[in-house]
Amino acid sequence: MPAPEKPVTNEDGKQDSSAIAEDDAAVRPPRAPPIPASVKINVEGAFIVDDEMNTKNGTANEHVHWEHKDIRLPYHTDVVSHVAVDIGGTLAKLVYFSRETGSTHGGGRLNFLNFETDRIDLCIDFIQELKKKQLKLNGSTPQELCVMATGGGAYKFYNRMKEVLHVDVVQEDEMECLIIGLDFFITEIPREVFTYSEEEPMQFAEARSDIYPYLLVNIGSGVSMVKVSGPREFQRVGGTSLGGGTFWGILSLLTGARTFDEMLRLAEEGDNAGVDMLVGDIYGSGYSKIGLKSTTIASTFGKVFRMKRLAERHAEDGEGLFNGDNLGGDHEMQGQFKIEDMARSLLYAISNNIGQIAYLQSEKHNLRHIYFGGSFIRGHTQTMNTLSYAIKFWSKGEKQAYFLRHEGYLGAVGAFLKRQPKNWGRRNSFDDIRLTKVMSKE
Amino acid sequence: MPAPEKPVTNEDGKQDSSAIAEDDAAVRPPRAPPIPASVKINVEGAFIVDDEMNTKNGTANEHVHWEHKDIRLPYHTDVVSHVAVDIGGTLAKLVYFSRETGSTHGGGRLNFLNFETDRIDLCIDFIQELKKKQLKLNGSTPQELCVMATGGGAYKFYNRMKEVLHVDVVQEDEMECLIIGLDFFITEIPREVFTYSEEEPMQFAEARSDIYPYLLVNIGSGVSMVKVSGPREFQRVGGTSLGGGTFWGILSLLTGARTFDEMLRLAEEGDNAGVDMLVGDIYGSGYSKIGLKSTTIASTFGKVFRMKRLAERHAEDGEGLFNGDNLGGDHEMQGQFKIEDMARSLLYAISNNIGQIAYLQSEKHNLRHIYFGGSFIRGHTQTMNTLSYAIKFWSKGEKQAYFLRHEGYLGAVGAFLKRQPKNWGRRNSFDDIRLTKVMSKE
Repeated sequence: MPAPEKPVTNEDGKQDSSAIAEDDAAVRPPRAPPIPASVKINVEGAFIVDDEMNTKNGTANEHVHWEHKDIRLPYHTDVVSHVAVDIGGTLAKLVYFSRETGSTHGGGRLNFLNFETDRIDLCIDFIQELKKKQLKLNGSTPQELCVMATGGGAYKFYNRMKEVLHVDVVQEDEMECLIIGLDFFITEIPREVFTYSEEEPMQFAEARSDIYPYLLVNIGSGVSMVKVSGPREFQRVGGTSLGGGTFWGILSLLTGARTFDEMLRLAEEGDNAGVDMLVGDIYGSGYSKIGLKSTTIASTFGKVFRMKRLAERHAEDGEGLFNGDNLGGDHEMQGQFKIEDMARSLLYAISNNIGQIAYLQSEKHNLRHIYFGGSFIRGHTQTMNTLSYAIKFWSKGEKQAYFLRHEGYLGAVGAFLKRQPKNWGRRNSFDDIRLTKVMSKE
Repeated sequence: MPAPEKPVTNEDGKQDSSAIAEDDAAVRPPRAPPIPASVKINVEGAFIVDDEMNTKNGTANEHVHWEHKDIRLPYHTDVVSHVAVDIGGTLAKLVYFSRETGSTHGGGRLNFLNFETDRIDLCIDFIQELKKKQLKLNGSTPQELCVMATGGGAYKFYNRMKEVLHVDVVQEDEMECLIIGLDFFITEIPREVFTYSEEEPMQFAEARSDIYPYLLVNIGSGVSMVKVSGPREFQRVGGTSLGGGTFWGILSLLTGARTFDEMLRLAEEGDNAGVDMLVGDIYGSGYSKIGLKSTTIASTFGKVFRMKRLAERHAEDGEGLFNGDNLGGDHEMQGQFKIEDMARSLLYAISNNIGQIAYLQSEKHNLRHIYFGGSFIRGHTQTMNTLSYAIKFWSKGEKQAYFLRHEGYLGAVGAFLKRQPKNWGRRNSFDDIRLTKVMSKE
C-alpha cells in the first residue's frame, strides 16, 4: 500500500517467512498458519453470479457494502469453517462461504462485502453472526471457526477480534495474500479478468496457465506494485502514496461528497478543463514539435491559482464579473470552480500517474502483463479507461492493463485460500512449484 | 511542461527545425532566428552576486519578483541589444543584460526577474522601459532591440508583444532553450550547480566538461523530463501533470494562501502525519517484512476521509469532541485539519512523485545525472531535500539529484544565449558539436 521503501525480495528465505517451506517446523515463524483444515474448495464449474440483487440477512446499512457478484461453487459440498478478512487503511474486505440452502442447485457460493475500517466493530459483529449461524447449520463447536486475517488491520485489530469473537485469528502477509488471490482469479474463475477501453468495454481475457511473470498494481488508500515471478515468488518493487486515499481525502475537503460513489458520480459529470491547465492554455495551440496536443493536460489543477488570482484582482478593482457568483448554474461550486470538474481532474491525475509509474516499473522489471486491483477501481469505467489508456500510451501499444471483477478482494480471497491443503483447484493455481522443484532435485 | 504525449526525438531533422544546420537557408523554417547579432557574451570571470539587495529602478510590486542572484560578467563590454523571456503557464521569466554603470569594476551583469503570466502586461511594460533605457544608453535605434521569446507564451502572446513593443520578437523552442540554458549553467557558471540534503546542504558541484548524457526534470506548472544526449540533442521522454500548478492550485483552495512563498512557509510549519495515512496507522506498527517503516507515508491525505467521517458520526451522535472545534489552537483550520499539515503533505507528495518518476525514467534511458530545474523549486530546502531523498532512495544511493541556483531561468537564459554567434564561451558549451562533426567528415 505505501510509498517509498527499500524493496526487500522474498527470494531470500531468511528475510521472508513466506519463502520457508511449510514442513520445516523448526524454522516456522510464530505467525505462520496452523496446519490447514482438511477441507478442499471444489472450484469445478465455478461462475460469477451476475448482478443478482442480494437479499442477505444481517447487518445492512450505509457502512456495509455488499458486492453483487458472488462466485457460485456448484460442486462444493464440504463444510467450510473459516472466513477471511483483509483490513486495509480505509476498507475491511470480507469473504465467506455459504451453502446454497433452499436451492435445487446444490453447492454453495463465495460472498463478498466490505466495511469501512473505522467501523471494524460492524465487521466483527458480522463475523459473530456468521459464527452463530455456522454453529446452527454445521453443529460445529464455536472454537472451530477461524478468521483468516490480512492487511494492516490484521495486526492492528488482532486483539480486538480475538476478544470479541473467541476464535482463532490467523494473520497472513498482505502481499502474499494479494498474489494468491490474484493467481486464483486469473486461473480459476471464468469471466473474471478483462481489458477495458472506451471503444471495447470489458473484453474478457482467456484463462492462462503461463501467467508469470507479471506486475500487480494494487490501488487501495495507497498503491503497491508487486512483481510476481511465480507462485509465492514476489517482490514489492514500488508504489505511490498518491492513491485512493488521496482522491477521497482531497475531494471530501473540496466537494463535501461523503461517499466514494458520490465522488465518482461527480467525476462523470465534470470537465477537467475547468481546473486543469491544458497545453492549449499555455501555447494558445498544441506544441506539435514534441507531439503535445492542445488538449493534453499540462498541469492538474493548474488553472486554479491563476483564476483565483484573477478573480481577486477583479474583486479588488470593484468588478464582480470573475468571482464566480452565479456562474455555476445548477452546479455546486467551490469558489469559481465546479466540484464536478475538480473530481474529474483528480480522478484523471491519480489514475494517469499510477498508470505511468506502473508502466515504468513494468519496463524496469521486464513485465509484459499488468494487473490492476484494489478498492479504488470499483469497476468504474472512467478510472479503468484512464489506467488502460496510460498503459497503452506509454508503452506505445505494446502493453495492456488487465482488470478484475473482484478487484477489491484479492487479499481477502488470498487469505481465504490460505486455509487450504495444497494442490487443490483444477489448474493447480495453488501449487507450490518452487517447493516441488526443490524436492525433485533431492 | 505537460503530461502524456508521444515523445518525438529531434534526431530526425525533418521533424525538428532545431536540428537543421543553420547555414542551410533553403530549408530554414519560418520561425528560425534571424542571423545572430554580432555580439559575443564574454563569460570570463563570471560569478554569482550573492544575496545583494537589488535597488533596481522601474516596476516593483507584488506581481514582480526580482531574484537576488545576478550573474556578474566583469569582462563583457560589448553592447547587448536583446532581452529574453520564457513565458510559462504561471510565470514569465525575464533575463536581460545591464552595464555596470557607476562602478569601477566595469563589465555588466545578467539580471533575473519574473512576472505572473496573467500580468504579462507588466512584463511587456518592463521590456518597454528597457527599450527606452537602451536607446538612451546605447544610442541604438529602437528597432534594434530584440526579444528572444520561449515557452508557450512566446506563441500565445506573440502578437501582443509585437504590437506594444514594435520590436523583433523571435520565438524559440522551449525544450531547446531549457537545454541550452542548463548546459550554460553547468559548464560556465561557478557555484551554480549543487547537491542538497539535510545533512549536507548545498554542496557545489565541480564544473564538468563531459556533461552528457543527462536527464533534465523541469518543474513548472507541469513537469517535463528531457533526455539530453549532446548539445541540442534531446528528447522529451516524459513528464507529469502533477507539478507546481497542482500544488499551488489545491493549496489556494484549501488554505487560502495567496502566494507560492506563503504556501512554502505553511509547509515548513506543518506535520504531514496530520493528514497522511502512515504505515503505522494501518498496521499499528511497521511492515518490516517488506521494509516499510511505521512512519512511511502509505496514502497522501489518506487520513482525511476517515477523520471527516468520524467527526460527522460523532456530530450526529451529539458529541462535539471530534469536529475540530477549538482543536487548532493558533492554527488556521480547514475543518478539523491544519492548513500547515496539508501544505506539507502536498509538497512531499508532489516532490516524491516527481522524484520517483524521474528515477524510473533515468533507469529506462540509462542516465546517471539528474538535474532539477523550474520555478516550482524556488531554492526551497524541503522541496530539494524531498527530491534528493527520492532519487537516493529509489536508486539505492546510486544516483544523485542536482539543483541550480537559477533553476527557474533555464529557458530564459537559453533563449538569451540563442542570440549569439557560435563558439563563444570558455568551455565551448555552445558549440554545435554535431555540425562540426558533419563538416569534418566532408
